[in-house]
Amino acid sequence: MIRLDELPEDIQARVQTTRERVALLHGELPANSLVVWTAGNVSERVEGTNLFVIKPSGVRYDELSAHTMVVCTLDGKKIEDGTPASLSPSSDTAAHAYVYRHMPQVGGVVHTHSTYATAFAAVHRPIPCVLTMMGDEFGGEIPVGPFAIIGDDSIGRGIVETLKESRSPAVLMANHGPFTIGKNAEAAVKAAVMVEEVARTVAAAEQLGTVVPVAQEHIDALYDRYQNVYGQH
Amino acid sequence: MIRLDELPEDIQARVQTTRERVALLHGELPANSLVVWTAGNVSERVEGTNLFVIKPSGVRYDELSAHTMVVCTLDGKKIEDGTPASLSPSSDTAAHAYVYRHMPQVGGVVHTHSTYATAFAAVHRPIPCVLTMMGDEFGGEIPVGPFAIIGDDSIGRGIVETLKESRSPAVLMANHGPFTIGKNAEAAVKAAVMVEEVARTVAAAEQLGTVVPVAQEHIDALYDRYQNVYGQH
Amino acid sequence: MIRLDELPEDIQARVQTTRERVALLHGELPANSLVVWTAGNVSERVEGTNLFVIKPSGVRYDELSAHTMVVCTLDGKKIEDGTPASLSPSSDTAAHAYVYRHMPQVGGVVHTHSTYATAFAAVHRPIPCVLTMMGDEFGGEIPVGPFAIIGDDSIGRGIVETLKESRSPAVLMANHGPFTIGKNAEAAVKAAVMVEEVARTVAAAEQLGTVVPVAQEHIDALYDRYQNVYGQH
Amino acid sequence: MIRLDELPEDIQARVQTTRERVALLHGELPANSLVVWTAGNVSERVEGTNLFVIKPSGVRYDELSAHTMVVCTLDGKKIEDGTPASLSPSSDTAAHAYVYRHMPQVGGVVHTHSTYATAFAAVHRPIPCVLTMMGDEFGGEIPVGPFAIIGDDSIGRGIVETLKESRSPAVLMANHGPFTIGKNAEAAVKAAVMVEEVARTVAAAEQLGTVVPVAQEHIDALYDRYQNVYGQH
Repeated sequence: MIRLDELPEDIQARVQTTRERVALLHGELPANSLVVWTAGNVSERVEGTNLFVIKPSGVRYDELSAHTMVVCTLDGKKIEDGTPASLSPSSDTAAHAYVYRHMPQVGGVVHTHSTYATAFAAVHRPIPCVLTMMGDEFGGEIPVGPFAIIGDDSIGRGIVETLKESRSPAVLMANHGPFTIGKNAEAAVKAAVMVEEVARTVAAAEQLGTVVPVAQEHIDALYDRYQNVYGQH
Repeated sequence: MIRLDELPEDIQARVQTTRERVALLHGELPANSLVVWTAGNVSERVEGTNLFVIKPSGVRYDELSAHTMVVCTLDGKKIEDGTPASLSPSSDTAAHAYVYRHMPQVGGVVHTHSTYATAFAAVHRPIPCVLTMMGDEFGGEIPVGPFAIIGDDSIGRGIVETLKESRSPAVLMANHGPFTIGKNAEAAVKAAVMVEEVARTVAAAEQLGTVVPVAQEHIDALYDRYQNVYGQH
Repeated sequence: MIRLDELPEDIQARVQTTRERVALLHGELPANSLVVWTAGNVSERVEGTNLFVIKPSGVRYDELSAHTMVVCTLDGKKIEDGTPASLSPSSDTAAHAYVYRHMPQVGGVVHTHSTYATAFAAVHRPIPCVLTMMGDEFGGEIPVGPFAIIGDDSIGRGIVETLKESRSPAVLMANHGPFTIGKNAEAAVKAAVMVEEVARTVAAAEQLGTVVPVAQEHIDALYDRYQNVYGQH
Repeated sequence: MIRLDELPEDIQARVQTTRERVALLHGELPANSLVVWTAGNVSERVEGTNLFVIKPSGVRYDELSAHTMVVCTLDGKKIEDGTPASLSPSSDTAAHAYVYRHMPQVGGVVHTHSTYATAFAAVHRPIPCVLTMMGDEFGGEIPVGPFAIIGDDSIGRGIVETLKESRSPAVLMANHGPFTIGKNAEAAVKAAVMVEEVARTVAAAEQLGTVVPVAQEHIDALYDRYQNVYGQH
């Protein structure tokens, strides 16, 4: 088994900063009301390696710290990372690992059961693009992925196949909840925050009347500008 | 009357740690927006005894501390526990006591009036199992218990009879609100948090379209794995 | 004009403790998400006098303190209470004063625009008694008062006439929002918290199906026990 | 390019206090749940100058401080204000600038994507005036502005043309979100808080039944008193 303390020093240092970032970013999940109890997780690829860092299983958000973040290989197996053997990686680790293996441009993955995004997932409906901020962030509707349960690669495969057909960094896994991706963990967390926000807003809008779609040409203009020109907000 | 200070020292110590745990866990109720004012309570059996610890009546959450937690026998009577005579156990104590008497495997009970779980209770509807996390945590739908009011054993009996027919650790007492059970108080609190979360999510989903049930075989697989294999999340 | 510093010392002391209580209780309004900006106020009668203490107008909740609470006579006029002349009593003072003049048993009044209670007020609908906690706290449905606007006694009169016909300590003034009363300010604040909680719960329930009313005999039993026997919760 | 450190000292001092105010007021956006991540901004005209102060682009609310607030001319160009060149003004700066150029009485502008106000914007519906507090604050319904996207003056023009036809300090830009104005930034922030509050309340009311409009004569009386007589609340 790979031992963290036998890796080159610069990689150990990169693992350490990744662990610090991932621990800190988990705080955004409860702060943005995306999770209750332990039901959500953030991971980040360790740049230039075949490793990623993810939440330990069953640990509550206010007890997380950099040194309890679990380090895994891209097949989702924990390495000898200095954490106790009793600390397993999140039960969603296989899905994160599948994404890192099949989407090399992805540096961060987030999974939550945030209320409104999960509500769309429970009715197997994509979130229609009726807000300019959806054009900016998602480049169109937010798609639904297949129903899949833990136990094999079906969740990971469902995420990857759905996202490869879309500009959206978020997929609503049917009856389950959203998974989001980004160039790093912070970008994936931002996408998790935004998918819940637009889900809540669109749900509210549908109660008020008939939502008006944003025209495709405007979506394209918004997306292009936000992703390529803008860089900040 | 039983006097706490005349019990064996190891039992006094166990009562003390139970009180500390129960006082602390009450903080989860407002932190998770499950209660307003004083309208919810947590109890825990003192392991290996015929006693349990419960919230004092009418005391607000930010004024609770370990030494004001009331100690009761399994018939719901306060013992001489060192608290002032003016401090009564929660008005829901009889229901908690009934559960402990009739469900020996239960170590913790929680009652709240959390908004969405209580909304389902007001329409006498079980929460349908349309989310994978409901398969994990509840093993199916969350059942409704009978209408019952304080004054005799009818609330406790309604809880026990409903839960004995179900894998769910939560029951929605009609027109009243959720009661949850667990192997200890923390597990019952987690169930109280999760029942509100799934109630809110399913309520939102029903506004968006037709919810898609999770198939029974998938519910069984999720429940089995989560309860027996997994242990953490 | 009455000068506070010329009143008997024991009354000055009572005014001071009332001011402290009222300042502190205002913190419950934002803490329970009942208000935004400055849109809600608490008052309390100074026991055994013809005075009451109320929020100054236009001051935000985090800037309130005991010594800026305004002291008024029962006709709603500010006395020489040591606050700057620029500090006026809340624009709702006339309504509070009317209640104190016409309901001698009332020691505290609260007004908010809390979301769901105000939503019922906007459709002129009483909140139906479909929850056991409504039986406990309100003794039946929560009534709607007439439409009235600031400028004369019509708001105060509407509150008093509606509450005199009801066991409820809360009235939903049409198109405006809830006013609540209690034996003291804390009881009125509790009623303001509870009216919003039951409004939100009933609103959610109505989206889920047909709410089941609590039978009158059960409402009576709940109310009698909670108000007369119980005293705490 | 204008250099801040070459302007007269009294103007430099005014810029400084404006920056402090604007930095502080940004804290109200997350505190009132009007924004997630970086999706909202506040600006204020520097009194007696052709400058205004606005949020830097892409910076999160808890990292904002007075010395990172960007100073712009009324055509929306950043001056040499002492901030790093990498810090651009908010991507919504052109819209703010347009408002300052065309509405000289306006001293503050706020933009958010707050949930319920944006939901009304997604269905192109004004918020009907069914609450007395809407009479007070908005003087009638809250209007919808045209669909417009970033890139030219069309957002600013849409805001100005809509608000010039209305007493409301808030406009719901179609598929986008609310913009609010005020005599200074604090007043515009208050309007942003209130537009979300009334949007949420009216949305809830419409689920409960048929909302009852406030008669025009009462709206006029409320608005006149609140704006001209009252001054505080």
